[in-house]
Amino acid sequence: MKQSSFVEPMMDKDDVAAMVLSAKRQSGITWEEIADKIGMSPVWTHSACMGMNAMPRDKADALVSVMGLPQEAAFVLAESPTKVWEQAVPTDPCIYRFYEIVGVYGPTLKALIQEEFGDGIMSAIDFDMSIKRIENPKGDRVEVTMTGKFLGYNSW
Amino acid sequence: MKQSSFVEPMMDKDDVAAMVLSAKRQSGITWEEIADKIGMSPVWTHSACMGMNAMPRDKADALVSVMGLPQEAAFVLAESPTKVWEQAVPTDPCIYRFYEIVGVYGPTLKALIQEEFGDGIMSAIDFDMSIKRIENPKGDRVEVTMTGKFLGYNSW
Amino acid sequence: MKQSSFVEPMMDKDDVAAMVLSAKRQSGITWEEIADKIGMSPVWTHSACMGMNAMPRDKADALVSVMGLPQEAAFVLAESPTKVWEQAVPTDPCIYRFYEIVGVYGPTLKALIQEEFGDGIMSAIDFDMSIKRIENPKGDRVEVTMTGKFLGYNSW
Amino acid sequence: MKQSSFVEPMMDKDDVAAMVLSAKRQSGITWEEIADKIGMSPVWTHSACMGMNAMPRDKADALVSVMGLPQEAAFVLAESPTKVWEQAVPTDPCIYRFYEIVGVYGPTLKALIQEEFGDGIMSAIDFDMSIKRIENPKGDRVEVTMTGKFLGYNSW
Amino acid sequence: MKQSSFVEPMMDKDDVAAMVLSAKRQSGITWEEIADKIGMSPVWTHSACMGMNAMPRDKADALVSVMGLPQEAAFVLAESPTKVWEQAVPTDPCIYRFYEIVGVYGPTLKALIQEEFGDGIMSAIDFDMSIKRIENPKGDRVEVTMTGKFLGYNSW
Amino acid sequence: MKQSSFVEPMMDKDDVAAMVLSAKRQSGITWEEIADKIGMSPVWTHSACMGMNAMPRDKADALVSVMGLPQEAAFVLAESPTKVWEQAVPTDPCIYRFYEIVGVYGPTLKALIQEEFGDGIMSAIDFDMSIKRIENPKGDRVEVTMTGKFLGYNSW
Amino acid sequence: MKQSSFVEPMMDKDDVAAMVLSAKRQSGITWEEIADKIGMSPVWTHSACMGMNAMPRDKADALVSVMGLPQEAAFVLAESPTKVWEQAVPTDPCIYRFYEIVGVYGPTLKALIQEEFGDGIMSAIDFDMSIKRIENPKGDRVEVTMTGKFLGYNSW
Amino acid sequence: MKQSSFVEPMMDKDDVAAMVLSAKRQSGITWEEIADKIGMSPVWTHSACMGMNAMPRDKADALVSVMGLPQEAAFVLAESPTKVWEQAVPTDPCIYRFYEIVGVYGPTLKALIQEEFGDGIMSAIDFDMSIKRIENPKGDRVEVTMTGKFLGYNSW
Amino acid sequence: MKQSSFVEPMMDKDDVAAMVLSAKRQSGITWEEIADKIGMSPVWTHSACMGMNAMPRDKADALVSVMGLPQEAAFVLAESPTKVWEQAVPTDPCIYRFYEIVGVYGPTLKALIQEEFGDGIMSAIDFDMSIKRIENPKGDRVEVTMTGKFLGYNSW
Amino acid sequence: MKQSSFVEPMMDKDDVAAMVLSAKRQSGITWEEIADKIGMSPVWTHSACMGMNAMPRDKADALVSVMGLPQEAAFVLAESPTKVWEQAVPTDPCIYRFYEIVGVYGPTLKALIQEEFGDGIMSAIDFDMSIKRIENPKGDRVEVTMTGKFLGYNSW
Repeated sequence: MKQSSFVEPMMDKDDVAAMVLSAKRQSGITWEEIADKIGMSPVWTHSACMGMNAMPRDKADALVSVMGLPQEAAFVLAESPTKVWEQAVPTDPCIYRFYEIVGVYGPTLKALIQEEFGDGIMSAIDFDMSIKRIENPKGDRVEVTMTGKFLGYNSW
Repeated sequence: MKQSSFVEPMMDKDDVAAMVLSAKRQSGITWEEIADKIGMSPVWTHSACMGMNAMPRDKADALVSVMGLPQEAAFVLAESPTKVWEQAVPTDPCIYRFYEIVGVYGPTLKALIQEEFGDGIMSAIDFDMSIKRIENPKGDRVEVTMTGKFLGYNSW
Repeated sequence: MKQSSFVEPMMDKDDVAAMVLSAKRQSGITWEEIADKIGMSPVWTHSACMGMNAMPRDKADALVSVMGLPQEAAFVLAESPTKVWEQAVPTDPCIYRFYEIVGVYGPTLKALIQEEFGDGIMSAIDFDMSIKRIENPKGDRVEVTMTGKFLGYNSW
Repeated sequence: MKQSSFVEPMMDKDDVAAMVLSAKRQSGITWEEIADKIGMSPVWTHSACMGMNAMPRDKADALVSVMGLPQEAAFVLAESPTKVWEQAVPTDPCIYRFYEIVGVYGPTLKALIQEEFGDGIMSAIDFDMSIKRIENPKGDRVEVTMTGKFLGYNSW
Repeated sequence: MKQSSFVEPMMDKDDVAAMVLSAKRQSGITWEEIADKIGMSPVWTHSACMGMNAMPRDKADALVSVMGLPQEAAFVLAESPTKVWEQAVPTDPCIYRFYEIVGVYGPTLKALIQEEFGDGIMSAIDFDMSIKRIENPKGDRVEVTMTGKFLGYNSW
Repeated sequence: MKQSSFVEPMMDKDDVAAMVLSAKRQSGITWEEIADKIGMSPVWTHSACMGMNAMPRDKADALVSVMGLPQEAAFVLAESPTKVWEQAVPTDPCIYRFYEIVGVYGPTLKALIQEEFGDGIMSAIDFDMSIKRIENPKGDRVEVTMTGKFLGYNSW
Repeated sequence: MKQSSFVEPMMDKDDVAAMVLSAKRQSGITWEEIADKIGMSPVWTHSACMGMNAMPRDKADALVSVMGLPQEAAFVLAESPTKVWEQAVPTDPCIYRFYEIVGVYGPTLKALIQEEFGDGIMSAIDFDMSIKRIENPKGDRVEVTMTGKFLGYNSW
Repeated sequence: MKQSSFVEPMMDKDDVAAMVLSAKRQSGITWEEIADKIGMSPVWTHSACMGMNAMPRDKADALVSVMGLPQEAAFVLAESPTKVWEQAVPTDPCIYRFYEIVGVYGPTLKALIQEEFGDGIMSAIDFDMSIKRIENPKGDRVEVTMTGKFLGYNSW
Repeated sequence: MKQSSFVEPMMDKDDVAAMVLSAKRQSGITWEEIADKIGMSPVWTHSACMGMNAMPRDKADALVSVMGLPQEAAFVLAESPTKVWEQAVPTDPCIYRFYEIVGVYGPTLKALIQEEFGDGIMSAIDFDMSIKRIENPKGDRVEVTMTGKFLGYNSW
Repeated sequence: MKQSSFVEPMMDKDDVAAMVLSAKRQSGITWEEIADKIGMSPVWTHSACMGMNAMPRDKADALVSVMGLPQEAAFVLAESPTKVWEQAVPTDPCIYRFYEIVGVYGPTLKALIQEEFGDGIMSAIDFDMSIKRIENPKGDRVEVTMTGKFLGYNSW
């Protein structure tokens, strides 16, 4: 939707994300510290700050207070986002590698989940994810763990 | 490359995958049992049987023996595959949900990895993955864990 | 996967779909009658016969018996399908109109579901659908009804 | 069309949609309440406010009065829209699931409509839709119902 | 759907189109003559023979008799087709020019139809088309005429 | 080309189209009336006003006078346009139906034109089109008629 | 259209192109010699042999005689082709360079043709093309020359 | 690259193209006259003015003087351009016809160039092109001639 | 992310790239000289200035001093970039030729690397590249050399 | 072009590639050894065997003798290939990394080549490439070196 010249602009999730990034650059606080201060995980906190998840109102209020944002931002953080992500495979190497993993192992994930659980899927809605550093003498490793509720197909 | 009519067809990774699936349907063995018998993980075993990873020769020999395949199959299983995966986002719901996760959380994975490790990526080559059932009274959950070596960008 | 010349072909969901269509053309039975005979709905029955849903084993056995299919077909009907559907918007007018509806009303469905239920989605897995003729003096109408479980997003 | 610098901008459907959203945020009114006040259904009301349907002039006047919009907005609401929707399958999970449903069940809808009605389609023009909450102890369900006039193909 | 090796192939619309083209080449009959013999228009007759429209059963029987096709072909001609057409703009110059016309004049057609009839569309289902040679000293012209029922949008 | 900050903007066809639409909204004049006043057809007039055809200078002068546009607009209306139209099939239902018609009947148009005229095409340059309401008790119909000069392929 | 199993295959333009290439390889004749023998230009002759132009019947008869093809091939060479060419920019470097030329100089061709001739186009139907070697001490050059009739847009 | 708000904008090739077009409209000079005044061909002159070729510095100075542009423009005209052209086939009929020609005759150009010169390509870099009016009683023709150096593939 | 109107804009990598280009045009310094002054290679220096690589802080400070940029620019140069590159094959001939090389020789690179090193890849992260002029009497040559660490696939 | 059923199949480059691969698997010879035996580089030899470069006739004869191929294969190896490569970015990680390099460093290659040589390109036709193992205690490196003749743009 184009910016109307007939009505005042409303603050939206992109505005709030820009405010968070600006406050973060000025204060030097890390995502892990922000997450810690609002009592949530870093993955979810970053995602919700960037506008890809809705914050429960109390978490939104906490974030606004931690980052020094205007009060209207809490209202915006609590709204349901429209999740728009790159439809083409993204080019940034750090993100691309995850697409490569899902591309190579997608049919394997399907085969093993359905062998174990029956016909259905792992939910991406009732879902969580975390990232951890694994020390290793040959070079530290990134560990990514996700869990999602198994949902079985309905027959009717 | 089209099937030449001037030369005998060579057995390739698609042929071996079809043999494995056929032997698996007839014997009723599971992926977990196959993996166990060759002493590897189920994720890697399924992926290598389907032609998306190369098997070390001893594992290829073990698989051929477990599944009753012809000896030439071990040679084929040990070749480097050309990994071709769906360039468009796949439609099968069980696979699609993983693209949705990577689409929504890709920038978050990048931000948190680079905050923790510096400028670089998680390798998709020096990489492993596992799948586990997490019992839960509200409905069992699928847990997917992956680790990859952190690789820092070079400056020169 | 190409048809291997090194192993016997296995019956798959496309084979079974072709068998059902052939038996249906010869017997003149309708989808509604087939559904009725196996005690399921017409929408689910057509979809499972065409290979887009997995049949519970007893329903697969019933279908095989109703349509006079070989016993192996019941095994195939019970397998988890890989659901591949047209990624481009399809051109057949009868199917296209449903894409047009979802295209025009998609944001409306989202806004009203999230206003009523909170941040989340209607499941396409725990889901059912039916089709009905509504008589109308200005021309009979098609009624399509679908229900899906509401799934709320997780915060963690 | 680019914004001309040689002529005053004209109010258009995007401007009116922005005004409605702004007034809605300030007043806290729901789509259901707005629909109720103008005597139309929530689905159609949201869609017409967002610029995807044309309002009969009396409904446009009622909306302008309910939401406190300038009188010119009623003129704009009554114009025929150019319905532009996402040509690629959208990524927002709540909207995507409806594309998944249409993708999986499109051929089923076609087969059952044409078995019942003959060669033709369900109209997406002479069409209506509603959304309802179905209470359910295992989790409430979203019910979507749509009806469209059957249109038979012409032979000539 | 792949050609199953577990069931006899069924005659389909592509088979019948090939039979019609083969019989037409051998007999030298024109589309206009075929249309005339079955009492329908050339446009509709060609389209139905090529599998893009369903024939009423009596017309299918007439065509089978005129072209010397096997009786099963009449059954196939009467089935509802799945209309699949080139999603990309086609390259054949004779067909491309019609896309160019619709591309250039599409918004004009919309503006003038909606100015004359109100908010709605020209049906492509309750529709007919004809082609005629217009003699002209500067070079004969092709005249294409189409009519379709106007369908007004529903408000509810 | 981006708007240069080093040179005054030049009036272009988009500017003139915006002026025409603005003047048309204020005066309430219809496309048919505009066309009548400049002595041309409604299809061509709308298309040329929207910047998809070049006006002969006298027609451009007449339009400028009828609509009260600045004199420079006549110069712009007479320039050769760069005809840019939607490369993807457009989503607006009123325009889409014409693509559906060309998609379904494109091969038919080619077959019948070439049967009648020999190897060649209908010109989209030496071309005209008109739209008419056909009254009909079952619902009025839209009639679209186009003629284009037949152009035969050269052999050399 | 799939190869029907219910009717004998008909010889088509691809068959004839394969016959010409086979006869050409065995005899060692060049395109220039073939063109010369049938009294046409090499560009048109190659294009028509490959199925991208229709041959007048006498030229088709001459070609059949020169290349030793079966008589039915002359009938096929004289049919109107459906010209299908690569919709994506082709990758072969020798062909790609021509797309690069048209891409870079397309707007220039338009500007200079319309400056010289007025609003219209160069026909690609009433068209011819030739290729010539230009000797040059710094390296011989390829010269490509094409002419097409200018077609002016119609106003109506 | 977005317009930075931290640094003054630099004049670029789009700015200079806009200046040339503006000066050309005001003075009424033709491309042929501009080319003549700077002693170059019209094709190259238009292309370089539009930013698709780099001008030698003396030609850039001459153009700046002929068109009355600021001196900085000569510097910009002499820079190497980044040649960005429409990746999709363009819709303007005058440009499209050249894509049609290259699409239909691309394989012919390749076959005849390689028959005459051996394995290699016609250069699009060491290249020139001209356009000429050919008078003809049946309608004047556009003649386009291009020459490019033949480049043979290297073997090593 | 759109430019928020609720928060001051933050300097980003595009801003810094514009500053570098502006300072470079005014001073006439070459990329080779800039690289030399900060003690890095020209390839890496250009890439990091354009925002496609992160600079170690001391190199960023050196660049800011060499080019006379504001101090905040050093902070920005040191951030991890999101590497976005053209997903479609680019049209500029100088860049396109490298895609052509990778397209033609990609499978060759794979075959020879894996023959020499085993199953794995050349890293694009632990990577460097240089460009050199090779004098040659038949015309000087561009030499591009790249090295990347070999990474072997993991089995687990 | 489909396989004609009216003419014997001709051996083509795909057939020869399949013969080479089959002979290579049976003999265990490496690409480096094959190249050595015909006195050419491994990169060019692999590429020409796979059908992406034309062999001079003496090299083709040598290859046929080394690999024990039928004599007709030498004729085919010497023909000009049509170089078709993946238009979409390929998914195999070993090949993808080279696209990533060209994507990230494309504009850098252009800037540095044109700074050093002037306006022009590195030829991909008068071109060569080699691959080498660089021993390194932190892990061996792949070195890829390519040289191409610089070609300057023509002005005319």
